[in-house]
Amino acid sequence: MKFPGYAVIIAGGRGTRFWPLSRARRPKQLLKLFSKNSMIRETADRILPLFGPARTLVVTVADQHAAVRKELPMLPKANFLAEPEGKNTAPCIGLAAIELSRRDPNAIMVILPADHWISDPKSFQRTLRMAVQLAQEENGLVTIGIRPNYPETGYGYIVKGQEIDRAEKIPCYRVRGFKEKPSLETASELLQSGSLWNSGIFVWKVSTFLGLLRRFAPEISQGLEQIEKKLAPKALGNLPLKLRPILRREYKKMPNISIDYAVLEKAGAEGKVLTLEADFGWSDVGNWAAVHRMFSRDNSGNGGVGKWLGFKSQGCLIYAPDRLVALLGMEDVFVVDTPDALVVGDMKRSQEVRELVEELEHKDHRKYTTR
Amino acid sequence: MKFPGYAVIIAGGRGTRFWPLSRARRPKQLLKLFSKNSMIRETADRILPLFGPARTLVVTVADQHAAVRKELPMLPKANFLAEPEGKNTAPCIGLAAIELSRRDPNAIMVILPADHWISDPKSFQRTLRMAVQLAQEENGLVTIGIRPNYPETGYGYIVKGQEIDRAEKIPCYRVRGFKEKPSLETASELLQSGSLWNSGIFVWKVSTFLGLLRRFAPEISQGLEQIEKKLAPKALGNLPLKLRPILRREYKKMPNISIDYAVLEKAGAEGKVLTLEADFGWSDVGNWAAVHRMFSRDNSGNGGVGKWLGFKSQGCLIYAPDRLVALLGMEDVFVVDTPDALVVGDMKRSQEVRELVEELEHKDHRKYTTR
Repeated sequence: MKFPGYAVIIAGGRGTRFWPLSRARRPKQLLKLFSKNSMIRETADRILPLFGPARTLVVTVADQHAAVRKELPMLPKANFLAEPEGKNTAPCIGLAAIELSRRDPNAIMVILPADHWISDPKSFQRTLRMAVQLAQEENGLVTIGIRPNYPETGYGYIVKGQEIDRAEKIPCYRVRGFKEKPSLETASELLQSGSLWNSGIFVWKVSTFLGLLRRFAPEISQGLEQIEKKLAPKALGNLPLKLRPILRREYKKMPNISIDYAVLEKAGAEGKVLTLEADFGWSDVGNWAAVHRMFSRDNSGNGGVGKWLGFKSQGCLIYAPDRLVALLGMEDVFVVDTPDALVVGDMKRSQEVRELVEELEHKDHRKYTTR
Repeated sequence: MKFPGYAVIIAGGRGTRFWPLSRARRPKQLLKLFSKNSMIRETADRILPLFGPARTLVVTVADQHAAVRKELPMLPKANFLAEPEGKNTAPCIGLAAIELSRRDPNAIMVILPADHWISDPKSFQRTLRMAVQLAQEENGLVTIGIRPNYPETGYGYIVKGQEIDRAEKIPCYRVRGFKEKPSLETASELLQSGSLWNSGIFVWKVSTFLGLLRRFAPEISQGLEQIEKKLAPKALGNLPLKLRPILRREYKKMPNISIDYAVLEKAGAEGKVLTLEADFGWSDVGNWAAVHRMFSRDNSGNGGVGKWLGFKSQGCLIYAPDRLVALLGMEDVFVVDTPDALVVGDMKRSQEVRELVEELEHKDHRKYTTR
């Protein structure tokens, strides 16, 4: 039997957390951090064996549309949806849902962030198969939870409820609740009590999802219905220029909100969210510290790309493809070098690169963040 | 009365302590750290009003000869002496002494390192005038001591003996001894007991010096006498190619030794060394930490050259004329950026850049240290 469902790759991130390597027009999903391929290309390559190009969609924002298409030349033009502006994940997933509903009202959609790292694609594919089956049979919203191996404070957590008895090897639970970016103390407790990282990978029937969106997020739902009505029966991918203002107008009115807050938490409270406890080696690669964890490191814990010397230094990340970087007596520091800008930062504060970028824009260094 | 004596600028340093800005062929004296002029040019500009170009000599090593001459186009070609190899300061000063002795057996020589920083040139010139007068009248070796303002461990110290009563305002002492690169504890004691930094600026009669060199460092003296004998009456500056092997052969045999160890300590023990207690704002600019102390700094103690942002950082030095450097959460760190290499180091360990350069050469990164 052919694997059912559609994959929807979500590729709308801004280029702040990996500055100076990432820029407004070169966000994380377009970076080649771990191989010769961009992260979005690796994401596509992982799922194409399951869905094929015809049933793989990408949602991106207008100003990244061209760059994203270039990375995925194997996908049909009509499968790229461009949001006029980024409004977090809820409107984005909603837009994909109405396009899929137009194609097949009984479609199952598999939502995949474009910029995550996965070490075991086979195990990942097995998990997706089970998630699709579960979404078909149980009629709920299926989330992929990841067994955590340390108390990450930058992630969201899924609190497991009752186990659902199924034949498959991957444990399945009803979700009791969500916990977004906890303190270190709470993260440690969540880790100990068996809670899971929320991978941002979701699987559900389009019809189930749109029904819940109508109930829990009517502002988004109404906007999407307007788009559907005014553009129908047009496909949303590769939308002609003259129809784009309709999308723009409706997007302007929509709230900027994540799918977790808009739908999942509320559906979870009604027992409608399930989770699979997966373990395929996953990271959302949120900052340079995460990249450091994934790189191979020498005996002193230093790792990097390019030519570098970690003299009397330890726990450092050096990303410098073009020049020699020499460290002297540094500890837990990341150095990222690009042709026009470089950052030297405390690894423990790599999450604050976002603030740093804001400060740069403040100080009239905008050309270094946008170009 | 015209100011008597000759200035001898010593410019033989290797480019290790300021790597990656300095390289084997671009040593410290050729760097433009504090103005649009190189340090050797600033040194020359400070003394030319006293000595004039005809009585200003430069001793450098062969492979820096061309670059050094280019920096000082106002000096006659014959005033550049090129050592075939660096053998520390004793042979270097000896070579200048025999050239001066050839020109004028009664000459007074003023020895000046090419790569020091001086904040008050007027006070510096006053000190030199007095030193020359003292060398003429007292027949001893005159050193310029600097009143220290912190316990630097990278300098040599002059321990003062009895004060010599003179009409001038600058206090003058007989030297009791020298202390090279003390521990922090010893440096603090030296500071408290009124000892002085040894500036490496020396003034003496050529005849007095050569006499003491003959007694205290006969190996050097004999080599110099051979050079004198075989080349006489040739000038040592701008030596014809075919005569250079003579110099090379004699240099090979000479010990690698500083003037302090070879002559000053021994002459000091016989009461033949004097010191002036000067205060003209001096630093030998030994490492990046010294550069940081001399730069103007913001409220967080960050200072630098180029475009930089010290976000949540303090006490840092950024030298990056060509690119934007952003720091995040850094403390007491120096970042020095050049087109092909950059260093990120702990300010407290900036003295260890020398070791870092050795390590680089070890690891087959020689092209980054020599070119």
